[in-house]
Amino acid sequence: MTDVNAIYPQDRIVIREVGLRDGLQISSGFPSTDGKIEWLQKEYAAGVRHFEAGSYLPHDRFPQFADVQTIVDALNRLDGAHSIALAINRRGQADALVGGAGELTCVLSATEEHNLANARCSRRETLEAIAGTVELRNQSGHKPLINVGISMSFGCSIAGPVEPETVVDLAEQCLERGVDIVGIADTVGYAGPRQVGELCNSMSRLFGDRPYVVHLHDTRGMAIANAAAALDCGARVFDASLAGLGGCPFAPGATGNIVTEDLAFLCRTAGFETGIDLEKLVSAREVLAREMPGEPLQGALSKAGIPKTMIPDNA
Amino acid sequence: MTDVNAIYPQDRIVIREVGLRDGLQISSGFPSTDGKIEWLQKEYAAGVRHFEAGSYLPHDRFPQFADVQTIVDALNRLDGAHSIALAINRRGQADALVGGAGELTCVLSATEEHNLANARCSRRETLEAIAGTVELRNQSGHKPLINVGISMSFGCSIAGPVEPETVVDLAEQCLERGVDIVGIADTVGYAGPRQVGELCNSMSRLFGDRPYVVHLHDTRGMAIANAAAALDCGARVFDASLAGLGGCPFAPGATGNIVTEDLAFLCRTAGFETGIDLEKLVSAREVLAREMPGEPLQGALSKAGIPKTMIPDNA
Repeated sequence: MTDVNAIYPQDRIVIREVGLRDGLQISSGFPSTDGKIEWLQKEYAAGVRHFEAGSYLPHDRFPQFADVQTIVDALNRLDGAHSIALAINRRGQADALVGGAGELTCVLSATEEHNLANARCSRRETLEAIAGTVELRNQSGHKPLINVGISMSFGCSIAGPVEPETVVDLAEQCLERGVDIVGIADTVGYAGPRQVGELCNSMSRLFGDRPYVVHLHDTRGMAIANAAAALDCGARVFDASLAGLGGCPFAPGATGNIVTEDLAFLCRTAGFETGIDLEKLVSAREVLAREMPGEPLQGALSKAGIPKTMIPDNA
Repeated sequence: MTDVNAIYPQDRIVIREVGLRDGLQISSGFPSTDGKIEWLQKEYAAGVRHFEAGSYLPHDRFPQFADVQTIVDALNRLDGAHSIALAINRRGQADALVGGAGELTCVLSATEEHNLANARCSRRETLEAIAGTVELRNQSGHKPLINVGISMSFGCSIAGPVEPETVVDLAEQCLERGVDIVGIADTVGYAGPRQVGELCNSMSRLFGDRPYVVHLHDTRGMAIANAAAALDCGARVFDASLAGLGGCPFAPGATGNIVTEDLAFLCRTAGFETGIDLEKLVSAREVLAREMPGEPLQGALSKAGIPKTMIPDNA
């Protein structure tokens, strides 16, 4: 069985680039396959090792992910890179297992109302399906990590407030079913740093030395503040999207995922090691500017550069 | 003598709108006088009470502040509004005293190098000039608050790192000279939340129940995270700029001041009272969109709206 702590070393902050999946979920355009490979190679050269490659979904309905297998293959050829793929149904999961993705992500909603609207079944039924996914993995020759992302963990666009205890309880039920890693997602950008800190404290207690993922959106400008609170409360794995790609399906035109390069800068200011070279990371934005010319690129570090206080004397 | 705690009540977070001054310092265009008055009236209607009106500077070199007296007068006619003006030389200070500004802001740099470059004198000489400003105010019939903004408090674009002890020592020297309120400014956006929390802890110890100001720029995307850290460490007064107006003179195209509406939202998520109606505040951006059509308007809350979790049931 793959050791989750080998994939997610606990001596550093792991930033997972999810722009290739979550960033392209509702974008108006998407990069060519060659463009995607150049994008991930540039981030790999900057030190990023964890990538969400895409989603195993019907090609006709999701043309932006039609090349997911090519992207997984490209990642698997890079030494030390970890390929993650969203696979929300049995067909997609079977394809991902055969395709050799290093991690399969399933989705569960924090609220019954959103789970019913999104997955058309109850949370209990989704949890049983997740148990089936774990079983499928266990019987497979290739044994990827199984990840469950709990959407709406900080408030739901349908049901409203979400108690942290609800999320921690769902996370615990995932672990009991053999899930390796759980993510808490501020899907609609409702959270503030106080709330994020509280939930991360509880998650850190539940997970101990095992990793959990914090997935933040900058829908209302709080993403970096929320990440700072999560870091202070023990979170060590974060999803992020280069140039903040990805919007909010419930707020057209809103900003998307937390910006990878600004998050890496935050970690640097707070003395957390990420293994990422900030200047090389920023330079990867060139691929997006060329491949997705109509897409607004977010982020502040890229406009201002590294502070004088962080440039080594011998640079 | 004006009581600083009466102007800055300690039972809430005071957000000072500085867009009319700092936001227009290096902007390519600026609103008409009528546009400025509509702007401040809309923010006043949203609950904002503290405004930096402009700068008393030569009209020919700073046409964006030629109407500063008209703006101060407009503010002074609004019940409970507090007018602040930058006045960095004797002539400007005399004009501000005659003109009835409620607060005069002087500037001191945290580093000797920047003070020499910016004010063409040592920090000691600037501190003596500030003592002279306090004396001028004491002899005046109108007695505004005297504020000193310490620029480069979190790192200097010339000298590099700045120790928190240096800033606290300068703040103490200001208080010893009769200054009422001191601001710590991340002029070039170098700070991260850990550093901001450390300096705010020291400032909170020095100032006790008296207010000090935190002036943040979003140059590298850290402004809201830095404000969250400052709030956690006892800061109660913040400068901010509607739509994040204002750039960075050292980084052309970079983002500017912390966004007023996103900061007010942060306070709301953390349970801090500001007296500000978020939706009314966001609507004030219309004035900027109309009066400054070429200027990029920053901020996320305005694109996404208030979360469902914050809308009262009877709304």
